[in-house]
Amino acid sequence: MRVLGIDPGLRNTGWGVIDQRGSRLGHIANGICHSSGETLAERLLSLHIQLTEIVARYAPEEAAVEQTFVNRDAAGTLKLGQARGIALLVPAQAGLEVGEYAPNAVKKAIVGVGHADKHQIDHMVRLQFPGIEIAGADAADALAIALCHAHHLAGGARLAAALARAGA
Amino acid sequence: MRVLGIDPGLRNTGWGVIDQRGSRLGHIANGICHSSGETLAERLLSLHIQLTEIVARYAPEEAAVEQTFVNRDAAGTLKLGQARGIALLVPAQAGLEVGEYAPNAVKKAIVGVGHADKHQIDHMVRLQFPGIEIAGADAADALAIALCHAHHLAGGARLAAALARAGA
Repeated sequence: MRVLGIDPGLRNTGWGVIDQRGSRLGHIANGICHSSGETLAERLLSLHIQLTEIVARYAPEEAAVEQTFVNRDAAGTLKLGQARGIALLVPAQAGLEVGEYAPNAVKKAIVGVGHADKHQIDHMVRLQFPGIEIAGADAADALAIALCHAHHLAGGARLAAALARAGA
Repeated sequence: MRVLGIDPGLRNTGWGVIDQRGSRLGHIANGICHSSGETLAERLLSLHIQLTEIVARYAPEEAAVEQTFVNRDAAGTLKLGQARGIALLVPAQAGLEVGEYAPNAVKKAIVGVGHADKHQIDHMVRLQFPGIEIAGADAADALAIALCHAHHLAGGARLAAALARAGA
């Protein structure tokens, strides 16, 4: 089962692709889409094109997007929502079901507690996939979302075993 | 010049298409996209398919989307943002520039004041296009957005003509 995780943002959208075969997890790729363009519509189009290329290249069978809650102003939340709309649309256009996970659910699945900080997320992702290069914090978050979805799909037990073997 | 106006919403997205030839304005069509689907991703995909069909059928040369500000909770703003992302994406995918207007700017352009209510918007749109059928309040808003954009473009064209005559 190949899983795409997406951490959406208007300027930077993290993405990560992992493979789950039985109790084995493998890292395929990760990166950050930098949306370019003068207008909002152009930036959303740029994000759509980049995510569509990623789905075509890595052919995931499942996708998951972070269910972000924003504590900033309404304008910031609206901006994030627009990017998130594209992040949900692209896998749906490829016929994939799209899982949604709240940040605390992702943290709990990966670190074991719901209040983990970004540093712990990054640490656990690197522990899971030793030696991989991570494009940045948004890409680490995207890999964590993919792991959370794989965890959910596997019913929890097998991934927990894999994480335990990795030293969690 | 054919202009598409969009009033985005996660459940109901109003749309309206008008033609502007010189100082004449004509109504082409209006309607409301009802997004169906069990998941958020499916509803966004449904909205994307419907708006893409509208752009293909009416071939607008310009598009405009309401720059909605929401005073509800953050979750409501995020939902609206996701629908708005699709509303901005679809015309951009067709190579159109997408104008954005705040509700008050739309009201000021149509009714003359920035604090007009929905009833006044509907009234002014019907006055502009006598005898047309309007699919609902969201469709009336979308036609108002298209009118606002047409006014803006006509003002720009007049300015460009004036500048050309002045040798600027």
